[in-house]
Formats: sequence, C-alpha cells, structure tokens
Amino acid sequence: MRRMQGFSKLTRVEDALILVKRHCRERALGYEEVNVKEAWGRVLEEDITSMVDVPPFDRSAVDGYAIRSEEGFSASRSNPALFYIKGTEEAGGVRGQIGKSECYEVYTGAPTPVGADAVVMAEDCERRGDELRVYRAVPKFANISFKGEDIRAGEVVLRRGECLRPWHVGVLASIGRERTTVKKRPVVGVFSTGSELVDIANAKIRRGTSRIIDSTRPMVVGLLMELGCGVVDEGIVQDDLEKISKMLAELTGKVDLIITIGGTSVGGKDLVPEAVQSISEPGIIFHGLAARPGKPTGFGMLGKTPFFMLPGYPVSALIGFEALIMPLLCKWLGLEVPRRERARAIMARRVPTTPGIRHFLRVTLSRRRGVLVAMPLALTGSGLLSSVTKADGLVVIPEDLEGVEEGDEVEVELLRRGFSDAE
Amino acid sequence: MRRMQGFSKLTRVEDALILVKRHCRERALGYEEVNVKEAWGRVLEEDITSMVDVPPFDRSAVDGYAIRSEEGFSASRSNPALFYIKGTEEAGGVRGQIGKSECYEVYTGAPTPVGADAVVMAEDCERRGDELRVYRAVPKFANISFKGEDIRAGEVVLRRGECLRPWHVGVLASIGRERTTVKKRPVVGVFSTGSELVDIANAKIRRGTSRIIDSTRPMVVGLLMELGCGVVDEGIVQDDLEKISKMLAELTGKVDLIITIGGTSVGGKDLVPEAVQSISEPGIIFHGLAARPGKPTGFGMLGKTPFFMLPGYPVSALIGFEALIMPLLCKWLGLEVPRRERARAIMARRVPTTPGIRHFLRVTLSRRRGVLVAMPLALTGSGLLSSVTKADGLVVIPEDLEGVEEGDEVEVELLRRGFSDAE
Repeated sequence: MRRMQGFSKLTRVEDALILVKRHCRERALGYEEVNVKEAWGRVLEEDITSMVDVPPFDRSAVDGYAIRSEEGFSASRSNPALFYIKGTEEAGGVRGQIGKSECYEVYTGAPTPVGADAVVMAEDCERRGDELRVYRAVPKFANISFKGEDIRAGEVVLRRGECLRPWHVGVLASIGRERTTVKKRPVVGVFSTGSELVDIANAKIRRGTSRIIDSTRPMVVGLLMELGCGVVDEGIVQDDLEKISKMLAELTGKVDLIITIGGTSVGGKDLVPEAVQSISEPGIIFHGLAARPGKPTGFGMLGKTPFFMLPGYPVSALIGFEALIMPLLCKWLGLEVPRRERARAIMARRVPTTPGIRHFLRVTLSRRRGVLVAMPLALTGSGLLSSVTKADGLVVIPEDLEGVEEGDEVEVELLRRGFSDAE
Repeated sequence: MRRMQGFSKLTRVEDALILVKRHCRERALGYEEVNVKEAWGRVLEEDITSMVDVPPFDRSAVDGYAIRSEEGFSASRSNPALFYIKGTEEAGGVRGQIGKSECYEVYTGAPTPVGADAVVMAEDCERRGDELRVYRAVPKFANISFKGEDIRAGEVVLRRGECLRPWHVGVLASIGRERTTVKKRPVVGVFSTGSELVDIANAKIRRGTSRIIDSTRPMVVGLLMELGCGVVDEGIVQDDLEKISKMLAELTGKVDLIITIGGTSVGGKDLVPEAVQSISEPGIIFHGLAARPGKPTGFGMLGKTPFFMLPGYPVSALIGFEALIMPLLCKWLGLEVPRRERARAIMARRVPTTPGIRHFLRVTLSRRRGVLVAMPLALTGSGLLSSVTKADGLVVIPEDLEGVEEGDEVEVELLRRGFSDAE
C-alpha cells in the first residue's frame, strides 16, 4: 500500500487552465450535417453564402397603394394627387403593372407592380370606389423593400464559428438552406469509482451498511447535459485497478473527453491515477489544484483523449468542473462561459485563507440598512452539498490574499435570485 | 373586403405585459413525476423532506488517523503522542472501535471508528510499522463530518418552486430520492398563415413564383425549444378563414399556448383576428403593440387557452416574442428571463422616434479612442433579419422620448461578444 501523503504540488487555477487549453488545442470534434430547423445552439462549420436575393422581389413594407412617386411628389391635403386603382396585389400574388395615374392596392409583403417606385400608406389616402386620393407627399422609394435589400445573392450571410441562435435559423431558412454543417457536440464519458458507492437507482438496498449514494455523478451528468454535451454514463466502477483501467481504455478514443469521479485524493484506495499511468502516455499532466474546495482535481491525456479526475465530494467536484471543464467545453461548443450575476457585499466576519490557494467561500446574504452583508457558512468539509443549496452566493478569494477581513467589500457570484445589483 | 386602416389603438408594452399576466395567472400547467437524474432544469412541484441523515454516519473529512482527541490534545513535534494502529477504515468498510491509545487509519469518507472524536491529518503524523506518532495538537471533533451534519432526517432540503440545477439533483440523489414531482413543461402550438408562404422543406419548388420561404416559424420554434418548451409545429395554414378557424379550434385546449405567425396586420387578407373572434370568448384582448418593430403583435384567450398573434416579419416577431411571450413562458417554467449582457455606448447620430412607442434600434458598435460608439443600421422595413445578424446590439428607446441625440449615452443589449463592460 502506498503511504499516505498530501499532494506534493498544487497547480494554480490559471496555470491549470493554460495546461488544459494547450493539450486540448488540437482536438477536432468533427462535423455533421443537420436540418436547419434543429440547428439552433449549434456552431456553424461552414461559411454560408446566399444563392438568392432576399427579398426575392421588390415588395411593399406597408399596407397601402403603389404609385409612381413623381405623380405623388407634391400631394397634400389641399391638393391631393388622384389615381385610378387598377387592382390589388396580395402577398404571393402575380405582379401587375401600372402606367400614368394608375396605382395598385398593395398589402404588406406583396410584390410592387412594375412601374411603381413608392408605396403610400393607407392612412395617408382616401379611397372612393376606383379612385384614390393621396393627401401626403410621397418621396421616391418610400415603403418599398427592394429585391436583395436584406440579403444579396453571393453575399456571405453567416460565418464559420457562429453559434446559431434562432434568428440565424430564420436567416438560413430565408435563403432556402434546408441543411447545414455544424460542429459535432462533444461526447463525454463519465464514471464514478468507489466500492462504497451505490447508484441512486439501488438506493433502497443500501440500508444498514456504510455504503453511500453516488450523488456527484448525477450532478456532473446534469452539468454536462445543461451545456448540450452528449454523455456516456458508465455508472460506478469498483475500487479495482484492473476494472478502472479497463473502463478507461474502453472510453479512450470513443469519447471526446473522460471524467472520472472519486478515487483522486491520496488515500490508499485511490486507484484512478495509478490506472491512468498504466494505460497510455502522456498520462497525468497535473494532479492537485490550488483550490479549496476542489484540491483533488486532476487532468491528463490518454493518448489524444483528455481526461479530468474530479473529487468524489460533490462541492469539490462542482468547483473543479466550473474552474476547468466548463471553460474547455464552452470553447469546444462555441459558447460563452456562463457567468453568474454578481453583487457587491460587505463581509460579516473575517475568514483567513491560505495564500497560494483560491478559496471558494459559500455565503448567505442579507440586507442591513440597505447594505448587502455576506455571512460565510460554517463548514467542516467539502462534502456538504447543502452548503451550495443553502448558500446565496460564492465569494472567490484570490491566491494572493491571506483571507478577507470583517467589513471588506467583496464580489459575490449569486446562486439565488433577489440580490443582483441589476435588479 | 375590410377597408385598410391602421391599428385603432396601440397598447404599451408594460400594459400589454400586465394584461398577459392577468389572463394567464390561473393557468395550471400540471405536474409529472420524473427520474431525479433527468430533473435538472425542471421546477419542483413539492417540498422535499429528507428521510435520512447525510452523511449517514460520522465520517472522516480527510486522509489520516482517527483518535480520541483527549490523547492528542497536547501533542507537538517535541512531545509526540503515541498510538497503536489497530487497522484501516476504508470508505464503504465496516466500522471499528478504538480504546485507550489506539487509533485507526482512515481514508476520506470512511466511517470513523466508535470511540474516536477527531481525525489527525496524515501530514501531521509519522507511521512506523504499527506505531503512530502525532506531532500536532488535535482539537476535539477535528476533521470529522458528523452524521446529519449536511442534512438532518426530517429537514426540508428543497422547496416547491425551486428550479432544479445539477447540484439540486445531487442533493436529491444524496437523500435517496430516485423520482420527484416537477411542473410540466408548457406545450406550445405554432402555425404560420399565408398562401404566399412555402415551408423550407419545399424551398426548391418555389422558383419563379412570388412565394417566399417561411423563415419566421423556424425561428419561433427555435426560441421556444431553447427555453425548454414542447412544440406542436402545425406548419403553414392557407389564407382561408375556415382553415384557420379549424386549426385554432384543434389546438385550443390541447396545448398550453397558441402562437400564430403572420396574418395579423390590417391588410384585407389578415384573417387570424377574424377567425379568433368567431371561435370563442373572450377572443382578442389587445391587438397592436406600441413597439417598433413589433406593432402587429396581439394577444387573446380562446376559452382558457391563451394565444399570441405574432407578425410574419421575423424581426417584428422576435421583438413581440421577447417582449411578451418570453416573460410568460419563463414565469411558467420557473426560469429567470434571460438577460443580455449590456454595455454603455455613445450614439453616433440622432435617431428621431415617435413618442408613446417603444423603439428597438439595431446598432453596430465600434471603439473610437476607447469609447464605444453605437451606429444605427439604416433600414427600410422590419422584415430584415439581416438587421439582427449584422447588428452588434439593440438600443431600446423608451416611450417617453422623442428619440436619441447624437452624443447621447445609451445602454446597448449585446447581440454579439466582445463589447461587454464586464469583459
């Protein structure tokens, strides 16, 4: 049995991020063709050039009457311009033509008739049978959306790398694109290690034993799915070097990223690091993060497949996930890293911290005489998920401080509504 | 044929929101039971009381040695306390017992042996065979997470109405809850009206006609799905009063909300309002929103089913959706209304607006001598989706202004990265 010992070296969060990005830079997720209707949230893998003009013809932007503007140029209430109404143009209808002193009634979106160069709005005219009286001067080109005004044939309308929002889907539809090429979503393989763990589905058979329910894995799977990743959930693997090695080998190359949960602290039974080193170069890049909670977080490469070792304790795992895995996945997905709303608050008491380590303090918030006050939750261990659900926010204490003093102003990442500066 | 006329009355956005909320207040979406693993993003419909203590037993928060603290109380490097190592407690193992001068080796998460009331960290001791030397004073209760410390049996851990994030899923798992009751997701029925429209799937057969591709519906469906709604997409309905009425009647009562697209301006062929009034009381509540773009937006009730009429033009539809439908759906879903990042900018030129109407200006942004400058996009009509994809942000000009002047400072809702104040 390996002798117990602390992590010999802790990697600072910024340095860890740089290492992760350096090793994962080359990762190609590949691409796939999808239906445009289902392409929202995906990242475009091609430049999109329109083959058509949008609108495809000159059309009216309002309900009104299409005229030759020179004939309505000086119209006014006292001196209306008169037109013969030749017919009605409806959206989807056939395009008419007007000559001198003629006009067409046109509806929004309808093609304007040949010969017309302006549309006068319905409220600025009066209709009497076939006769139209225009009471307001109409400048040339008024209220017409010209062919190609929105998008011109040959124009690049969207560029590779754009994260498609629903209005981009609208643009793709408007130019007649039914399918498009997008980045594949990352698929992440996840498993927990620990012979003491039982899956939530088997919670009932655990009574009277010192086995505990695996609550970290459902959380991590949820975090991954919230981001839009595919997940291969491999459940719980026993504390057995051979079984862990086999699972790692099975996932390597099959998924884009592997996350192991538990078995990463330096106790005698923590076999994941050992399994990793036995499988493939380069193996572990760093193990031990200068973060509290979150210290037993590690990262490495199994051949070309990156993997993260997350601690088994849920709060540590959450901190490790948000600090390192989320930025990587967001980069792959072409998403901005989700950013919590923030608020300024005054610390209710002193909290000493260890320099060189980033501390994530869970606090409750209250208002005293209009000032937001942050009270740290009293905690034993990083296992306490209730510290997240009971907390109103997180205070991040950077590495160069030795803590925060009572009365210090701090920035709080809000976990709950109702405290935002913006509200 | 109805005479062309403008909307006789425009409803201000705040008033419209109040009307929508008042009529939809009573809507019960119902609830359903889901697997806890898939419950992230859902809204809890029950208070959750834990039946168990978490942790279920006293356990070690670190790797180290479990002792009786009174025996290590005055330990120091020059005066180490000595113990006999009776064995090892592993996570998931059976709980041992210690007597005088005895200790157990314990790993993080392992149950502490009966008799122990503190754990000394591995780095503060030295092991020689079966003998342990403790070099540091150990206070009572050090490094033990006590039974029930995270969650106590009988405690309410989560309350009805909580939007479940992945860590809540972790909490539910940790107390052995495999299934839970959540609010049903709203199901929204959507169709477009307009004989001139073709579905994107039939884009190729449109050549040489004045038909246009329905781009607004794929956008609206995407907006709904992004929010997590179920969507019943009924495609395109011809401009035929009977067909529109039939579709509305079919969806009423079957879905939680109906959205019609197009056919809402006041041209002769806009049959949706007519169809609505023929079906059910109370019908249209308001039609015509004091927003630009977005004016032809309407709202009503078909019996107990609320419905929105969105304009066919995509940008108008987007504004109408974000102004009225999104707040309602977020309320139903228990989500915060997504809020765009914002930045302060200086207007590059004057833009006059009509008082009483909320204007949504699309602008491009650039930095001049470190100052962010907003330049409005020149636009004919609200049909231009490219105005959204080309824009860097939206400037909302409130109803009480007559526009913004060149040099005015404005707040920009960012549609694109790289301009945020926070970046």
